[in-house]
Amino acid sequence: MDKDQLGIKRRHTGSHVMSAAVKMVYPNAKRGVGPWTETEFYQDFDFGENKVSESNLKEIEKKMRWIVNKNFKIEQKMCSEKEAKEIFKGDEYKIELIDEISARGEKISLYAFIGDEGRIVYSDLCAGPHLATTGELGVFKLTRLAGAYWRGDEKNKMLTRIYGVAFEKEEELKEYEHLIEEAKKRDHRKLGKELGIYTIDPTVGLGLPLWKPKGAMILTKLRRWFEDEQLRRGYVPVYTPHIGRKALWETSGHWGFYNNSMYPPIQVGQSLADYQDNRKPQENEIYLLKPMNCPAHMVIYNDDMHSYRDLPLRMYEFGTVYRYEQKGELGGLTRVRGFTQDDAHIICRRDQVEQEMKNIIDLAWFVLKETFGFEIEVYASLRDPESDKYLGEGKDWDMAEASIKKVLKEKNLPYTEEKGEAAFYGPKMDFKVKDCLGRKWQLSTIQFDFNLPTRFDMNYINEKGEQERPFVIHRAMLGSLERFMGILIEHYAGAFPTWLAPVQAHILPVADQHEGFASELQQKIQLAGGRAEMHNASETLGKRIRNAQMQKIPFAVVIGDKEVVSGSVTVRKYGEEKDQTMKVEKFINQLTENN
Amino acid sequence: MDKDQLGIKRRHTGSHVMSAAVKMVYPNAKRGVGPWTETEFYQDFDFGENKVSESNLKEIEKKMRWIVNKNFKIEQKMCSEKEAKEIFKGDEYKIELIDEISARGEKISLYAFIGDEGRIVYSDLCAGPHLATTGELGVFKLTRLAGAYWRGDEKNKMLTRIYGVAFEKEEELKEYEHLIEEAKKRDHRKLGKELGIYTIDPTVGLGLPLWKPKGAMILTKLRRWFEDEQLRRGYVPVYTPHIGRKALWETSGHWGFYNNSMYPPIQVGQSLADYQDNRKPQENEIYLLKPMNCPAHMVIYNDDMHSYRDLPLRMYEFGTVYRYEQKGELGGLTRVRGFTQDDAHIICRRDQVEQEMKNIIDLAWFVLKETFGFEIEVYASLRDPESDKYLGEGKDWDMAEASIKKVLKEKNLPYTEEKGEAAFYGPKMDFKVKDCLGRKWQLSTIQFDFNLPTRFDMNYINEKGEQERPFVIHRAMLGSLERFMGILIEHYAGAFPTWLAPVQAHILPVADQHEGFASELQQKIQLAGGRAEMHNASETLGKRIRNAQMQKIPFAVVIGDKEVVSGSVTVRKYGEEKDQTMKVEKFINQLTENN
Repeated sequence: MDKDQLGIKRRHTGSHVMSAAVKMVYPNAKRGVGPWTETEFYQDFDFGENKVSESNLKEIEKKMRWIVNKNFKIEQKMCSEKEAKEIFKGDEYKIELIDEISARGEKISLYAFIGDEGRIVYSDLCAGPHLATTGELGVFKLTRLAGAYWRGDEKNKMLTRIYGVAFEKEEELKEYEHLIEEAKKRDHRKLGKELGIYTIDPTVGLGLPLWKPKGAMILTKLRRWFEDEQLRRGYVPVYTPHIGRKALWETSGHWGFYNNSMYPPIQVGQSLADYQDNRKPQENEIYLLKPMNCPAHMVIYNDDMHSYRDLPLRMYEFGTVYRYEQKGELGGLTRVRGFTQDDAHIICRRDQVEQEMKNIIDLAWFVLKETFGFEIEVYASLRDPESDKYLGEGKDWDMAEASIKKVLKEKNLPYTEEKGEAAFYGPKMDFKVKDCLGRKWQLSTIQFDFNLPTRFDMNYINEKGEQERPFVIHRAMLGSLERFMGILIEHYAGAFPTWLAPVQAHILPVADQHEGFASELQQKIQLAGGRAEMHNASETLGKRIRNAQMQKIPFAVVIGDKEVVSGSVTVRKYGEEKDQTMKVEKFINQLTENN
Repeated sequence: MDKDQLGIKRRHTGSHVMSAAVKMVYPNAKRGVGPWTETEFYQDFDFGENKVSESNLKEIEKKMRWIVNKNFKIEQKMCSEKEAKEIFKGDEYKIELIDEISARGEKISLYAFIGDEGRIVYSDLCAGPHLATTGELGVFKLTRLAGAYWRGDEKNKMLTRIYGVAFEKEEELKEYEHLIEEAKKRDHRKLGKELGIYTIDPTVGLGLPLWKPKGAMILTKLRRWFEDEQLRRGYVPVYTPHIGRKALWETSGHWGFYNNSMYPPIQVGQSLADYQDNRKPQENEIYLLKPMNCPAHMVIYNDDMHSYRDLPLRMYEFGTVYRYEQKGELGGLTRVRGFTQDDAHIICRRDQVEQEMKNIIDLAWFVLKETFGFEIEVYASLRDPESDKYLGEGKDWDMAEASIKKVLKEKNLPYTEEKGEAAFYGPKMDFKVKDCLGRKWQLSTIQFDFNLPTRFDMNYINEKGEQERPFVIHRAMLGSLERFMGILIEHYAGAFPTWLAPVQAHILPVADQHEGFASELQQKIQLAGGRAEMHNASETLGKRIRNAQMQKIPFAVVIGDKEVVSGSVTVRKYGEEKDQTMKVEKFINQLTENN
């Protein structure tokens, strides 16, 4: 069996074994839901009056072990609404779910642990799949507790969520625990604070990161490097405003369709007095913060007539967009309300589609793999052949899907085909990356759009002098710069490569008399486009070297008598034990060559 | 007498002579106000039923000449409210003004033309100053008509504004007309469209420029060049969000004080249904588009503890802000609703203030004069010693004003002292530039802020280990990038220097067989960080060369047999008549050396 499939079954079963154990320890606990994640399983409980904390997990684990040792068979049982309600009497959350399943006219599926003589010793609502017996669960551990609203809705009661993991072998658990430990050390919220990268301030607003000088420096280098790469590949820049009239979002179709993700409107035309008295403004004076850059890019395209000779047009923008995510979903840089996309739109002719896709794939490999060292997984997200929710003409879809597959084949890239995962406006190719801890992140996307060209009535004049509709391909490579920065911080554990490091060197004069030389060196580095700080002798050299290590500065540069006399520097590279002495000029060249 | 002062008197008198002439031609015309500008005079009229157009100006000018030839003496007359109302009976706009002057308890000042035997032949409300006689008016001309709301308020009646100019000598009028003609050719709205720099689209919103690829390229180069310059001078970047909670604007004091210039609030927490039913959201969930970057920068400062050793901290951001300007005030790039400031805040100790000001002056000279060739005029805007509207402590103001003067003296810069022109939060130094047509633009500003440090309770630990409040200096160099771009377009008449030009070269193959070489050259330039377009032989070479001229492309590069064989290019520089042939590599180096 596929290892992933086995893992899913194991985590499913882990969740049931844990729930059964909880019921043994707390017979009055009421069960919520409990799906599995990529690495864990969990289940929500309403413990009523009982206080359950991390210290109680051991006891639950003990009961789990008993259940595993019993090696109960696990079997699916189908039953009627009435039977199910009898079984889950008092478990009010389960009753709510049973009502919903029945309302959809579906049968109720349970998975049960079978004891002696076929007796059901425990059962839970579940569509499976599961392991064959509880004995197969293997090595398991309950890892942590968290609060979770019933059905994720803030208006509902807060339940207690217990997380656990289960593996076939002890080594896998050890490996997992090591990764968790490592991930904690690398947590971008922790490092982001320690390294002065960003802050989120409640006065400014949740989900709205402020980039402090060091973080802003990394972002600046990242943006400029990627901008240069795009310019070299024939992209052109655009800048568009952060707000747009409602009419724009009606034309694009976001108004109505995307309202839940947009910040509420800005009612321009309303005076402060109107606002205070709650009077509505003129309809045509409603503005919205942009949740996407696309509509403004289409307006730019339409501002000129285009000939077939002008295409492809590859527009990029580092466009900051605002989406109103629910409070509970916000976290660090991974899920924010304001973020900057490295957004590009390629507007091209039908006969250019394949070459453009190949170019984007080349760019992705250069950026994600060669530059940052991520492994890449490719997904082709295609139509659900059963559904009719898709916009655009069938022949365009056929052509787009065929070219996605053709291009991936010609590029010799293995990929996973995901039927039904296309957007309603077009099929897409997605790239997920694996970071150095093996965690997967969806980053890049190449999406056909059969919606906007029609909505904005986009055209070009073809070789025959006729109007023709161009193809529009959305492309994001890093996705959201905020999220990408979060991933990079964890990927590098905060030790950014020299070209990205906000401070590339700490210059450390041994004593006061070396400060002049040190300060001159800092100036020279700055003028050469490098980034260095001087830390003077008000602290011991040892402490300052440790500080450079803690701040993960690529180079700690010591300046003493010897260096001043010979015009050289003694350099310790981050993570290395040995010092190196070299001429000042050589060091500056080395430091700034990739800036 | 000071030439400027004489000009002001001349324009004042011109306005009265014109009004008197209008009353001769249209006795029922009602007079509005009529100040002078830097170059013109104007007066608003309510012509009632009469249609007055450009064709009627000649007749008014004829009557003006008659008044000038009569050489009436011009005298100030003080009178009571009652007398004034008698004189301006039926002139309802003047009556409104008289009421206001009287309500302030002031005497009414008139300026009158005195005819034979001391008879008043014409008079108008005015505080002067004026020429001694109408005969001194010199050479004059009525230049244009425009609509203007009474008192600039859209709710009032639209009046007809007549503009005119007056000079001592004929040559001055000729020079003025030449400048107007030149300014028309250079108008950034016209060139902005012709050169594909920007567009403003009614669906997106008024005053919200969209930067098309060519304009965005110029902006990108401009930003990056200025960013590098700031980094070399020890500035550090920050990025802050475009929205912030009302609490932030309450802390900074913008809420309440700055409401009229801010876009209305975004009522976060309000669902779409709430919005549609007009229900108010929670108070703590109101967000505002940022009209300024300062508050977020202060929040970043406060996110860390600071020692006296960490200062000065020089934070910069290309921060896009949104201000709700009245529709009628919007125009091209000069007055917009969304614009990007090259904003910096220098947070420093008292003993660092002077050096920091000197550094900023050096930067201004490097940027405005050395790089862009503008002449610079310096203004010191100080307190009005009579007023008590100023925030902050007197000793800080004394120190700040003294250092402004001291620094300007040490830098040997002549400057104009403007008492009463300080902001309420601190004194400032302003730089105006003169473009190549001699027009003045206020660009750079260095402002002390005695408000924000207190409001945000900013501190650092001084040498004695005590908390001390730092100085905050606001600094903008280019001001708004949008406005600066508008000025640059007109300054260069669209012919940007090579390093800023969005397209640096048009590559023109003579015939189809030269396209391969031409296309390779374009690729090479692109990879070297240059910006070139190829225009193939589907048009005649002459037409393509003219097109490159029209687009003001720095280099038109012709590729024919000779060039292909010898690996060279034949280059015509914009504005030059002679071609130059050189090796491909040399040309690419020359093109990209300052990129």
